[in-house]
Amino acid sequence: MKIENIKKEVIQSNFPKSKTLQSDESQGVRQPFLQKSYDEKAKIIELPEVGEEIVQKLDVYQCLKERRSVRKYAKEDITLKQLSFLLWATQGVEKMVGKNKKTTYRTVPSGGGRHPFETYLVINQVQELDKGLYRYLPLEHKLLQIQVGDFSNQVAQNSMGQKYIENAAVVFIWSVVPYRTEWRYTINTPKLVLLDAGHVCQNLYIACEAIGCGTCAVACYDQEKMDQLIGVDGQEEFTIYLAPVGKRI
Amino acid sequence: MKIENIKKEVIQSNFPKSKTLQSDESQGVRQPFLQKSYDEKAKIIELPEVGEEIVQKLDVYQCLKERRSVRKYAKEDITLKQLSFLLWATQGVEKMVGKNKKTTYRTVPSGGGRHPFETYLVINQVQELDKGLYRYLPLEHKLLQIQVGDFSNQVAQNSMGQKYIENAAVVFIWSVVPYRTEWRYTINTPKLVLLDAGHVCQNLYIACEAIGCGTCAVACYDQEKMDQLIGVDGQEEFTIYLAPVGKRI
Repeated sequence: MKIENIKKEVIQSNFPKSKTLQSDESQGVRQPFLQKSYDEKAKIIELPEVGEEIVQKLDVYQCLKERRSVRKYAKEDITLKQLSFLLWATQGVEKMVGKNKKTTYRTVPSGGGRHPFETYLVINQVQELDKGLYRYLPLEHKLLQIQVGDFSNQVAQNSMGQKYIENAAVVFIWSVVPYRTEWRYTINTPKLVLLDAGHVCQNLYIACEAIGCGTCAVACYDQEKMDQLIGVDGQEEFTIYLAPVGKRI
Repeated sequence: MKIENIKKEVIQSNFPKSKTLQSDESQGVRQPFLQKSYDEKAKIIELPEVGEEIVQKLDVYQCLKERRSVRKYAKEDITLKQLSFLLWATQGVEKMVGKNKKTTYRTVPSGGGRHPFETYLVINQVQELDKGLYRYLPLEHKLLQIQVGDFSNQVAQNSMGQKYIENAAVVFIWSVVPYRTEWRYTINTPKLVLLDAGHVCQNLYIACEAIGCGTCAVACYDQEKMDQLIGVDGQEEFTIYLAPVGKRI
């Protein structure tokens, strides 16, 4: 069996070929928004500031060494501060730079600083938060409450029945808005957004390790059902990767 | 401009569709080798053991916070021990597990533990090493010398002339052997290997931060020229991502 050529092309570099293409950026089209808009009347939750006091295992060497994919979680809450730390570590904005401050420097790198992701959360056991579906607002470092309810079973079902996901304190579901990257990088977009999603998830692994939690990257899910769960259209925005998080046993 | 549908398919989950496909694994085909073979008469360099004494900035919180893409490097050697640490952090084997010990647990996760990468190095300024092209042997934690010579200009040229790459102490060039993943995951392979490459590169960022170095992920390169430089066929194995590393100024 061999990967079809068209798909191999996605893994390989298309930069030389793309030199002759006119990107929307080069044609003066306005940069897409850095963050999806939201109803300002919706419930917004402030996230506590995080500093290094949150970290239990401070030693970066040990965090790298002891990282594992963790599929068993203690039946224990995580704190809002811990969640705040995990969100900061994966998509947190450290600085706004460039013309009109339209580029973000974050804890993770992204091709051309495009940062094409939104972070949805299925909250199951987080102190101070109702169970439900939320979205992270990285520009404000706040949480948007989308819908209250218990979605833990559904997110496990949508992951082809991987039962352990149901026991996570929170499930990170990253969506991609490909146009944010495509605006500059045209045909290189599929490769870039997947590499970028890998960066994000690796930081989640390390950040979990630092606070006594564990995670496991999940690429095996039903696209349509997961998109439905988080309420995206599957075209302009769709699920790309997910990761349940819980306290280590 | 919109991503062609076939390419969008690569970003989305193909797991439900792949359930009906017979993988080589399910048909009893032997697992591909974990590491590319090499001429045992070639020059092999022992890599020093690394422990946390190598780390200058021990604090994981600061490493996450201060990570940036670094394109300016001091004209200074890095030590063989520092290189050893960076190789361990990106592809180091922590444990061999499973039937016949054919699965590796590493510092980075990989879909199904397939670890489809080889790590090539263009060495420019590393103590105790001649300038040249090398390959990391993760199973032995050793270096294979492929060819002595100054390839720093060539690797920059092959990266569409990104001049700063020439000043790196070492350039990591990751190749992918897609069949290692395809053997189990069939049509899911392009997505999985790109996510995995992102995991690897993020650990390089953090490990660099821990030892006063900097790196910058590079996806913009000429596929054929880069494959030629590292001596791979562009079919069974080809370049997927690279990252120059140098001392921070």
